[in-house]
Amino acid sequence: MGNKLTSRAKDYSKWYNEIVVNADLAENSAVRGCMIIKPYGYAIWEKVQAELDKMFKATGHENAYFPLFVPKSLFEAEEKNAEGFAKECAVVTHYRLKNDEENPGKLTIDPKAKLEEELVVRPTSEAVIWNTYKSWIQSYRDLPIKINQWANVVRWEMRTRLFLRTAEFLWQEGHTAHATKEEALEETQLMNQVYADFVENYMAIPVLQGTKTASERFAGAEETYCIEALMQDGKALQAGTSHFLGQNFAKAFDVKYATTEGDLEYVWATSWGVSTRLIGALIMTHSDDNGLVLPPNLAPLQVVIIPIYKGAEQQQQIAKVAENLKAKLEEKGVRIKFDNRDKFKPGYKFNEYELKGVPLRIAIGPKDLEKNTVEVARRDTLEKIIIPQQEVLMHVTEQLDQMQEALFQKALDFRANNMTEVNDYDEFKKILDLKGGFLLAHWDGTAETEEAIKKETKATIRCIPLTEKKETGQCIYSGKPSLQRVVFAKAY
Amino acid sequence: MGNKLTSRAKDYSKWYNEIVVNADLAENSAVRGCMIIKPYGYAIWEKVQAELDKMFKATGHENAYFPLFVPKSLFEAEEKNAEGFAKECAVVTHYRLKNDEENPGKLTIDPKAKLEEELVVRPTSEAVIWNTYKSWIQSYRDLPIKINQWANVVRWEMRTRLFLRTAEFLWQEGHTAHATKEEALEETQLMNQVYADFVENYMAIPVLQGTKTASERFAGAEETYCIEALMQDGKALQAGTSHFLGQNFAKAFDVKYATTEGDLEYVWATSWGVSTRLIGALIMTHSDDNGLVLPPNLAPLQVVIIPIYKGAEQQQQIAKVAENLKAKLEEKGVRIKFDNRDKFKPGYKFNEYELKGVPLRIAIGPKDLEKNTVEVARRDTLEKIIIPQQEVLMHVTEQLDQMQEALFQKALDFRANNMTEVNDYDEFKKILDLKGGFLLAHWDGTAETEEAIKKETKATIRCIPLTEKKETGQCIYSGKPSLQRVVFAKAY
Repeated sequence: MGNKLTSRAKDYSKWYNEIVVNADLAENSAVRGCMIIKPYGYAIWEKVQAELDKMFKATGHENAYFPLFVPKSLFEAEEKNAEGFAKECAVVTHYRLKNDEENPGKLTIDPKAKLEEELVVRPTSEAVIWNTYKSWIQSYRDLPIKINQWANVVRWEMRTRLFLRTAEFLWQEGHTAHATKEEALEETQLMNQVYADFVENYMAIPVLQGTKTASERFAGAEETYCIEALMQDGKALQAGTSHFLGQNFAKAFDVKYATTEGDLEYVWATSWGVSTRLIGALIMTHSDDNGLVLPPNLAPLQVVIIPIYKGAEQQQQIAKVAENLKAKLEEKGVRIKFDNRDKFKPGYKFNEYELKGVPLRIAIGPKDLEKNTVEVARRDTLEKIIIPQQEVLMHVTEQLDQMQEALFQKALDFRANNMTEVNDYDEFKKILDLKGGFLLAHWDGTAETEEAIKKETKATIRCIPLTEKKETGQCIYSGKPSLQRVVFAKAY
Repeated sequence: MGNKLTSRAKDYSKWYNEIVVNADLAENSAVRGCMIIKPYGYAIWEKVQAELDKMFKATGHENAYFPLFVPKSLFEAEEKNAEGFAKECAVVTHYRLKNDEENPGKLTIDPKAKLEEELVVRPTSEAVIWNTYKSWIQSYRDLPIKINQWANVVRWEMRTRLFLRTAEFLWQEGHTAHATKEEALEETQLMNQVYADFVENYMAIPVLQGTKTASERFAGAEETYCIEALMQDGKALQAGTSHFLGQNFAKAFDVKYATTEGDLEYVWATSWGVSTRLIGALIMTHSDDNGLVLPPNLAPLQVVIIPIYKGAEQQQQIAKVAENLKAKLEEKGVRIKFDNRDKFKPGYKFNEYELKGVPLRIAIGPKDLEKNTVEVARRDTLEKIIIPQQEVLMHVTEQLDQMQEALFQKALDFRANNMTEVNDYDEFKKILDLKGGFLLAHWDGTAETEEAIKKETKATIRCIPLTEKKETGQCIYSGKPSLQRVVFAKAY
């Protein structure tokens, strides 16, 4: 085909970047590490937002908005959280620029406009939110509070990659407050399940659910649940996290509630988030050397109709058929476009929509006019089939469903083929090196072993899986006893 | 009633603040000038977003996302724009905090992590967007570009008020690029019309459309169109603006396109925005001394059902009727809640929903059970009526429509009664003082006169109206000739 991307086999990382840029998803900006999300990429994010937002509301959450800035004194309050983010936060120190007297036409910071207290651009909002919850919560009647926020956050990452790791990114962050530990834990697990359902059913990406080890936990959490996906290069990608925060933030911000008996107790907390990083996972799970492949449930455009004609008369005849099909499919809720632009040739358009991963392409040419047919091509299999026009409606809806299912199944098969039980460290290193993927291995539960393996192999413990059958054994590194296999991988 | 707000007559400003806080719309945060938008207030903003977003897409716009930060050198590029915003911008100077050695447990700026170039937190995004358009636009084939962004922006205002003027606010900003001046002007006018349609049809707020005088224009614009609304205290509120930017940003960022003839021309630009300020306008247009009054088209909750019962059995009987009504109304697309909380008395609930401006309240008590009736109360008129249960569906949908219409008509009447043609400066000052409102007066077109009137009376020219019949006359201040009346008012 004509898209001429670097192949995955040749340079996976370059292939990824080329897809992001050439499919018009995003690009780097003039601001170090910050990306511009282009309309096509943003349309995918809008689909993510719309579906997740429905799921959050269906589970009893409401949206709200809290300030972008966190005063340093609030930021410091929960020590572990502060420690975790201090090294990568953007800090506002002044609130005015003035004319630079030495450089006419230029501006400079006005030293008179120095803030009394520095403001941290939120890397996450626990601090500012728990400082607020303090005044919202007096008694058990005020609980639970279940709030979500759609927002931008900033983490000053040194090595950035479009969607996967950027200094500013878009995300949602849920922040809930509960009367009991049990309820907070339940919420933590529920939201991790919501993420798993969304990512599997809409993004067609199979995920492992599990908990993080202590060293991989969110700064300030007592337990971090996560969903982990496997990319085509055998590396893992953390796709979402849900944190049980215990009473850490309640204690840091002194948030207590009166129980039904009138006692004062600290409140229990959770927080959970997914970000524009999901789009990186989407790209790396399904796409091929011809470009992006989008699962129909999430594709901004599910079907494109391209006319193949000579001369205005033929174009008009085809347009009539196309508009008619389009109207019928739109009525069924299909997201469809008829690309009747005259200044581009069909071949150019074929390449464009292939690169952009539109699930189905319908081509209509002179022969189709004669025979009342159309040609339908599927993006994932690249299969083309000629069908009667009266079957288009049924065929398209069927194919969209099948493609959604097929993408998930393909990714599931890939994962099955790249998830290996290993029983000793040499085997571990060999498989990691040759094949990558998820390595299921016994671990003694210590941070020392975890750190040593990471240092020697670059593999980290992605999660202690929830769903795997528990089986005791011996740590591949130390030989000490282990209660269950954990999931190792190299990761994004 | 029981809500005990300060009355509008007694202290309008206090009344406004009490509504915002007591109706759970928003509150001040720990960050100077930044507000927390609470779930009920945010739900209104979500309605605003949803409807506007549809209108933007229907007029051919796509959403995208650009960085929060603007490097100082880009910020400076369009001089007037930079000058207009330099005095109120938050500046990021560092990207790391470190442990404060003198204060254990505290953090301090790491002087080693000083940015080479300061980053301005966007007060508006023309600079960062036009710097990007530069690489997106080569030829006429790349035009027009019609992009919108939903985002947060920061303007370091010294005197802030919830929703009306906050240091950080949420908004949308459209940024379009065109091949010709005519097309850009058309876009500017179209989007101002879109704003007018939205604000009138959804928010039930009548607006005047017009252009700003040179001194009231957006910094960097050649013409600013606006919609101006009139609040109940006789002050004007600018509800939205749409700017024709000429070639100013194209020149500042050197954005040229090759015409069909192959000549290189600068690109023409527009930008347009509305913000969370609209919620302030909504509150101040319709609400009364009992609390918020929401137009049904924008109310997150249109109908609430409140049961009045003694004992569990009666509660169950009423609940059955209520759930049945709720299901039927939901099917019709009505946003409805059945508040069956046992821990609050009906009177408490009546007050709560009155304060929160829910358009219709349905109460069901023991007598209603007997007679198969319900009591429906309308929030704007406070009228109550008892109707048979089988008429609820028809009655509710009718009343929602009528209330939407009635609120608009009431606001329109108020404006008509508070829009005065004045023909000399003494009359101008007298009316402004006694009555306020929109004053239609002749003006000589000079910035000097405008400034003098502003200084002497605090009234500004809100707009040079588009729709008023043009009528020549003499400036009320200078006596010089004038081509048409303009609209003066004191403003928020």
